[in-house]
Amino acid sequence: MKKIMIHDMPKHLGETVKLGAWLANKRSSGKIAFLQLRDGTGFVQGVVVKAEVPEELFAIAKSMTQETSMYIIGEVTKDERSSFGYELQVKEIEVIHEAVDFPITPKEHGTEFLMDNRHLWLRSRKQHAIMKIRNEVIRATYEFFNDNGFAKVDPPILTGSAPEGTSELFQTKYFDEDAYLSQSGQLYMEAAAMALGKVFSFGPTFRAEKSKTRRHLIEFWMIEPEMAFVEFEENLEVQEQFVSYVVQSVLKNCKLELERLERDVTKLEHIQAPFPRISYDDAIIFLNENGFDDIKWGDDFGSPHETAIAEHYEKPVFITHYPIGIKPFYMQPHPDREDVVLCADLIAPEGYGEIIGGSERVHDYDLLKQRLDEHGLDQKAYAWYLELRKQGSVPHSGFGLGLERTVAWISGAEHVREAIPFPRLLNRLYP
Amino acid sequence: MKKIMIHDMPKHLGETVKLGAWLANKRSSGKIAFLQLRDGTGFVQGVVVKAEVPEELFAIAKSMTQETSMYIIGEVTKDERSSFGYELQVKEIEVIHEAVDFPITPKEHGTEFLMDNRHLWLRSRKQHAIMKIRNEVIRATYEFFNDNGFAKVDPPILTGSAPEGTSELFQTKYFDEDAYLSQSGQLYMEAAAMALGKVFSFGPTFRAEKSKTRRHLIEFWMIEPEMAFVEFEENLEVQEQFVSYVVQSVLKNCKLELERLERDVTKLEHIQAPFPRISYDDAIIFLNENGFDDIKWGDDFGSPHETAIAEHYEKPVFITHYPIGIKPFYMQPHPDREDVVLCADLIAPEGYGEIIGGSERVHDYDLLKQRLDEHGLDQKAYAWYLELRKQGSVPHSGFGLGLERTVAWISGAEHVREAIPFPRLLNRLYP
Ligand SMILES: [Mg+2]
Ligand SMILES: [Mg+2]
Repeated sequence: MKKIMIHDMPKHLGETVKLGAWLANKRSSGKIAFLQLRDGTGFVQGVVVKAEVPEELFAIAKSMTQETSMYIIGEVTKDERSSFGYELQVKEIEVIHEAVDFPITPKEHGTEFLMDNRHLWLRSRKQHAIMKIRNEVIRATYEFFNDNGFAKVDPPILTGSAPEGTSELFQTKYFDEDAYLSQSGQLYMEAAAMALGKVFSFGPTFRAEKSKTRRHLIEFWMIEPEMAFVEFEENLEVQEQFVSYVVQSVLKNCKLELERLERDVTKLEHIQAPFPRISYDDAIIFLNENGFDDIKWGDDFGSPHETAIAEHYEKPVFITHYPIGIKPFYMQPHPDREDVVLCADLIAPEGYGEIIGGSERVHDYDLLKQRLDEHGLDQKAYAWYLELRKQGSVPHSGFGLGLERTVAWISGAEHVREAIPFPRLLNRLYP
Repeated sequence: MKKIMIHDMPKHLGETVKLGAWLANKRSSGKIAFLQLRDGTGFVQGVVVKAEVPEELFAIAKSMTQETSMYIIGEVTKDERSSFGYELQVKEIEVIHEAVDFPITPKEHGTEFLMDNRHLWLRSRKQHAIMKIRNEVIRATYEFFNDNGFAKVDPPILTGSAPEGTSELFQTKYFDEDAYLSQSGQLYMEAAAMALGKVFSFGPTFRAEKSKTRRHLIEFWMIEPEMAFVEFEENLEVQEQFVSYVVQSVLKNCKLELERLERDVTKLEHIQAPFPRISYDDAIIFLNENGFDDIKWGDDFGSPHETAIAEHYEKPVFITHYPIGIKPFYMQPHPDREDVVLCADLIAPEGYGEIIGGSERVHDYDLLKQRLDEHGLDQKAYAWYLELRKQGSVPHSGFGLGLERTVAWISGAEHVREAIPFPRLLNRLYP
C-alpha cells in the first residue's frame, strides 16, 4: 500500500490508505478512541472503534503517548464537523517509536521554556500554522517576482568593508582579512539591476543590535528588489502589488492555518493595492495634533508613532519623503526640495510596524560623491559602487521587506520570534 | 508611451514601443547603424537608418559609447536572422548617461581583472546568460519542492556550537558568546521534518576551506531537503526527479542563454530520471581496473576518481554505500553490513564533480549516541538533536545539492566562480 500524506487525503475519499504520523493529542471512552494525528502536512482525526478492531489495537490506541510515531492504515471518510473535512477510520497501527514525556503538553508553558525546546515546539498546532504561512509568503514572493520578470540575484553575505561603521555588524576573520556579515545586499543589487534589469534577493541578514523588542531579530530574512529605469512612484506601485499578492495568497492557500491561529481574516481581506500614502510632513502634523508632543520635524519615528499613524488606516500605509538628515546617503533627493528624499517606509496595520523601507537611489556620480562626503564615508570602500554611476547610470529604485515582520503581521503572532524556525535573539543562540 | 522590456517585445510586434536600455555593442556604415541593445531581460538589435531619421539622431547612434544608457523608441519588427527573432526600427533616442571607457570590451581580459570588475562584468553576454540560468535553477527548485508538498524552512546561519571542530568554520562574537557560520542546516532540517513532514532549505553556506579549485567557493548556496518517513531508496528517487526537473526547466526556459553560451544541449536533453547507481565497492573495482592504482577500499574519492566514474555514464551517477569510516556520524548503517552506510553522492557528468550528498539518517537514540562517541563528539552540543530520537523518532532521509556546481554544469561554465554573482574565494572578498 502506497503511503500518502494528510494533505492528500481529500483525493482518496473512500480508499484505505497508509499514513506516517505522530500522535498530537487523543481522547477516548470505553468504546471509541479519537486520535489527533499530524504528519507535518496537516492534522486529521483517526477514529478507533473498539467493536470494529482487534482488542490489541484498541488497547494501543488508548494508551498511546503524545508524539508517538506510527504507520497507520485506515479508510478516508468525510467529517463535516472538522475544518479539514475528512477523518480516518483506523484499521491498523504500527507503532514506530513511543515518545516518553514529551515536554510540550497542551497546558501553558513559559516563553523561555518553549524557546529552549524550539526543536519540539515547532510541532505544536500554532507554531506549525505560522511556519506554513511563512512558507506560503516565501512561495508567493518567488511567484510574484518570477511572474513580473525579476531575476533572483544573491548578493554576498561576507563583505570586505564595513562602510557604515562596525557597531552593529558581526565581524569574522576571512583568512588574513577582516570580513563582516551583510546587513543589506542593496548596493550589490544595484550593480545587478544594471546587468539584469529587475532583480530581487531573498536571504538572511544580520544586525548585532542590542534591541529586545517584539519586532527585532538578530538574524532575519529580507527580500530586496532593485529595478533599473524605475522611479519613486513606480517603486511604490510594485511594493503595494507585491504585499497585496502575498496577503491574498495566504488567504487563499492557508485557510486552515489562519483559522487555527484564530486570525481575524476580515483585517486581511481588504489588503489590496493601492495603499494610502501620507507624507512625512503630514505625519508629523497628524502626530502633533493627536497628542504626541514628543516628536518634531526632523525626528525619526518610534514604534508608538508608527503605530498611531498605522491605526488611522485599514491598509498598510506609505510614509513618504522623509528628511534627508535621517535617511542613508544613497537616497535620491526630492527634485523640488532639498530637505527631503524620494523614499517611503511601509507601515503594517495592527501595530506590526515598518515592513518595508525603500527609495529611489542617487544615480548621479557627483551627487553620490558629495553625499558620501557629507556622511563622512570612505570613498575607497565605495569605489565599485560609485563606478556604477560612471558606466551608463540610470534612474533606479528598490526596497527591502522584512520577512518575519510580514509573517508575524499576517499570522497575528505576538512576537517575531514565532515567525522564524530557529530565532536568534539577544540572549538566544540555542537550539 | 508605456515602456516595455526586451523580453516582452514579441507581444508588441508592429507597435512603436519605448525601452530603457544600454548599448552593448554597435557597428555602422555611412547609411545604417546597428545598435546591440540590452536591458537585463534580453538583447536586441536596434536599426537606425540614416535616410529615415533626423541627422542628429543618426550622429548620436554612430558615436554612442559602449554601456551608454538611453530611452529608445522604435517599432518592433521580425528579424528571422537573430535567435531572438525581433528587432527595433529606431525612431528616437534619449541618452540618459554617456559611459566613458567601459573597462570590459569585447576583447579578451585576464581573470583577475574581470573578477575585480565583477560589478560590471555581470553585464556581458556570457555572464548574463549564466545568471539567467542560475535564476531558472532557483525558480525550478522552488516550483519542484512546492509542487511536491515540501515547506521551505530556513535553518539558522549563526549557531552556538561548532560540533565538528572549528577549523573550517568562520567564527564571530555573538555579544558575550562565540558563534559560527553554518556549514549545513541539516541537523535543524531534521527537527523541522519532524514538525512539517517534508521540508527544504535554500540558503548560503560557508566553508573556510583553503581550497583553490574550480569547484570550490568559500560562500555558496545549498538546497537541503529533509523528509520524514522516507528511507534510502525513496530519497534517491526524489533526488533524480529534482535534478531532472531542474535541467529540463533550463532547457525549456533558457534556450537563448544556452545558445549564447554555446552549450551542447544534447548532453542535457537526456538528463531524465532514473539515474544509474554504482556501489562504492564496485566503483573501487572499476577504478582499479581502469588504471587507478592510487585508491583502495576505505579511501575517499578525489576529483580525478569522480570524473573517471562519471565519464562512464551519460547521466549523473549515484555512488552508493560508502564506508562508514569516511562519512559523518549521522548516516544510517546498512541493515546487513556494518561497514557501509545508507548514503549516496550524485556525481555530475562532464567532470563537474559531486553535486549532491545525501543519506538516510540514524533514527535510533542509542545508536546515534554511540556514533557520537565513536566520532569523539560532545553530546552536550547535540542535546537537542539527540532528543529528536526520544520523541517519536521516525526513519528519515535528506540530501544537500550545491547550487553553483549545478549551475556551472548546466551552463558549461569552466569555474564555479562564474556561477554566483559575487564570488567569495580564498583571495577574493571584493567587490
Ligand atoms: Mg523607519
Ligand atoms: Mg564526496
